[in-house]
Amino acid sequence: MTKRNAFYAQSGGVTAVINASACGVIETARAHRGQIGKVFAGRNGILGALREELIDTSKESAKTIAALKHTPSGAFGSCRYKLKNPAQDMSEYERLIEVFKAHNIGYFFYNGGGDSADTCLKVSQLAETMGYPIQAIHIPKTVDNDLPFTDCSPGFGSVAKYVAVSTREASLDVASMCETSTKVFILEVMGRHAGWIAAAGGLAAEQAGDPPHIILFPEIAFDRDKFLKKVERTVKKNGYCVIVASEGAQYKDGTFIADAGATDAFGHKQLGGVAPTLATMIKDALGYKYHWALADYLQRSARHIASATDVEQAYAVGKAAVEYAIAGKSGVMVTIERKPGKRYRWSLGEAPLEHIANVEKKMPRNFISRDGFAITEAAQQYLKPLIAGEDYPPYKNGVPQYVRLKNQLVANKLKTRFSL
Amino acid sequence: MTKRNAFYAQSGGVTAVINASACGVIETARAHRGQIGKVFAGRNGILGALREELIDTSKESAKTIAALKHTPSGAFGSCRYKLKNPAQDMSEYERLIEVFKAHNIGYFFYNGGGDSADTCLKVSQLAETMGYPIQAIHIPKTVDNDLPFTDCSPGFGSVAKYVAVSTREASLDVASMCETSTKVFILEVMGRHAGWIAAAGGLAAEQAGDPPHIILFPEIAFDRDKFLKKVERTVKKNGYCVIVASEGAQYKDGTFIADAGATDAFGHKQLGGVAPTLATMIKDALGYKYHWALADYLQRSARHIASATDVEQAYAVGKAAVEYAIAGKSGVMVTIERKPGKRYRWSLGEAPLEHIANVEKKMPRNFISRDGFAITEAAQQYLKPLIAGEDYPPYKNGVPQYVRLKNQLVANKLKTRFSL
Repeated sequence: MTKRNAFYAQSGGVTAVINASACGVIETARAHRGQIGKVFAGRNGILGALREELIDTSKESAKTIAALKHTPSGAFGSCRYKLKNPAQDMSEYERLIEVFKAHNIGYFFYNGGGDSADTCLKVSQLAETMGYPIQAIHIPKTVDNDLPFTDCSPGFGSVAKYVAVSTREASLDVASMCETSTKVFILEVMGRHAGWIAAAGGLAAEQAGDPPHIILFPEIAFDRDKFLKKVERTVKKNGYCVIVASEGAQYKDGTFIADAGATDAFGHKQLGGVAPTLATMIKDALGYKYHWALADYLQRSARHIASATDVEQAYAVGKAAVEYAIAGKSGVMVTIERKPGKRYRWSLGEAPLEHIANVEKKMPRNFISRDGFAITEAAQQYLKPLIAGEDYPPYKNGVPQYVRLKNQLVANKLKTRFSL
Repeated sequence: MTKRNAFYAQSGGVTAVINASACGVIETARAHRGQIGKVFAGRNGILGALREELIDTSKESAKTIAALKHTPSGAFGSCRYKLKNPAQDMSEYERLIEVFKAHNIGYFFYNGGGDSADTCLKVSQLAETMGYPIQAIHIPKTVDNDLPFTDCSPGFGSVAKYVAVSTREASLDVASMCETSTKVFILEVMGRHAGWIAAAGGLAAEQAGDPPHIILFPEIAFDRDKFLKKVERTVKKNGYCVIVASEGAQYKDGTFIADAGATDAFGHKQLGGVAPTLATMIKDALGYKYHWALADYLQRSARHIASATDVEQAYAVGKAAVEYAIAGKSGVMVTIERKPGKRYRWSLGEAPLEHIANVEKKMPRNFISRDGFAITEAAQQYLKPLIAGEDYPPYKNGVPQYVRLKNQLVANKLKTRFSL
């Protein structure tokens, strides 16, 4: 059998370091030319496979591929697209296998979160069933840090660092102006079901009493009266109050504090508007002047302030995926394992995909203070190493130099076209 | 006459580099102990003088003062407080002079924007009239970059860099997801009357056609139809559209696109909400999925991504203020002058305060493209040097180490208390 090619795709919301994983995959595959042919990247993620739009990464220079390590977002394009359930409709998975066959693809590297772990699993299973086995390895990625079995998810450390840094900086601003101006500042951050990103705001505090004074987690039911009392007490004591609010913060009955109403392709509610809702609530009840910020995409694309630990891990999981495939593994996700001991050390492991799909790892209760408004020492210990180290991109004319790929497509081999 | 002390105060909205100016003032005063006594800083700006709450900066070590150069926001506290017009009510200015007399203050260094230039002028004039002459020097500071007579204002370069970097990063995010997700991204930035900050978003573009595709300036009347057509054309051509919108963007009749309705202490309208208003407008007319970010205080406190040029200039204007005072000057603002030539070079100058107060320098028309949605080559040439260079703060545990001052108050000498 001839040397088989690899397919790599980015899935779901992109991060500051997902391209570092791509870099790990491509550089490692290139280092194993004896075992792996070309790496084809899906244009816009899995859609690239369905549409037979395969980017030939061999057209990119070593220098360009290396620059992916410091370039945020998805260099080949990503997508939010949930494949049809093969139990009901096999057509999409059949199409994938057809494209893989046509391009002699024997390795499937899928870089994403929980939804894509499920896709990766099905590709590995169905390929087998259909007589065209493919080694499918899942490369973890999610700013939400909610993947199970891995100590953390690449992408999270950098968004966490962004939130910690921004919270510290904005808090100084509010502190210096509060005598005559803004008393309450709210930073709304991502995190639909898990409060990991909001928790990272807590790393802004150095000493007891430091901002942020309140963190709102999706894991803790929002209690309006308790919240307003805490805001009032904080302003009376410190002159101001800084709040980091998770977009997924919700009441006891599961109603989100603010709900934009729209839903994404996976059927998840699209959120936004917690900060203004809280601001108005505070203004109405307590009369305080407020400001709020919504970091939105800025937080997950902020490669300029990426965590060096995160960059290193993102690269490492990409590299390991190729090594696992060469070692004959399939149907697993690369995991990051924290070694015991005071000093932070980590190694790579693996977890079977069967157990990963659609499981969300939430903040453990002992990571959240008893009153529900802060992180504990245990959370600090968990989070701190993940934002450690700076890994600045190169700059030119005052702005970071992010790489542009040629993204040249491989010639089509199939006559049939796929349309959504 | 004994050696006279200096008073330094921070006024209005703080910036990522206003403490670098404070550092310049204090270090330079310390280097001229023969001429200047202690530097007292107003606690919460000019309120500190009115309330006789003077921070004794001599209690801080050289190392602490040096660290102000990399610490954002106002280390002594700032305020939004407009002194009563002395033509109607002399009491506040009389109180200032009384406090200055009591503490043998002969130098008044006021670090702020247009409103504080006016205060600085009046202090210099009234002190003279009242027989207690004070040398009053204004140190420019405003993220809005709207002060006249100076080529740029310290504070602007760093917010400009933040906006350029963030726009570039978020644009990559949108570009990689637009096939199946967000088509329109809007970043709302500061700038009530002048579009300088929004203009800086234009520095994210490297080649023609690069994002941002649309910039909305307060200087250009907003035309809904023209805007929507441009959004639609852009999405059809590129698959997505990135917009940087100034909070002060307005219709021809002066109505702000979004108007929160509240007003600040100076009677200025407090804005916010341009981005969601535009997003809804686009959704309703064109149906595109959108995301938007509101950087708010994050943009002006982002010392982690400060412009090295800005930091250097902020320090230099503080230093020059002390040198000007020692040279016997008063009633002037330190200015930054751009030297002719292709390579960016600058020097310091001065401008009489009479001409500065309440004049706002807007974007010249030739800095904005004919269609009103972009910056021109002339604007690029003006803006680029101001964001040049990185000046990273030191980090510990993944977050920047910003200094905390003791902020020890000088013992009161006056029996009377001042209340607002």
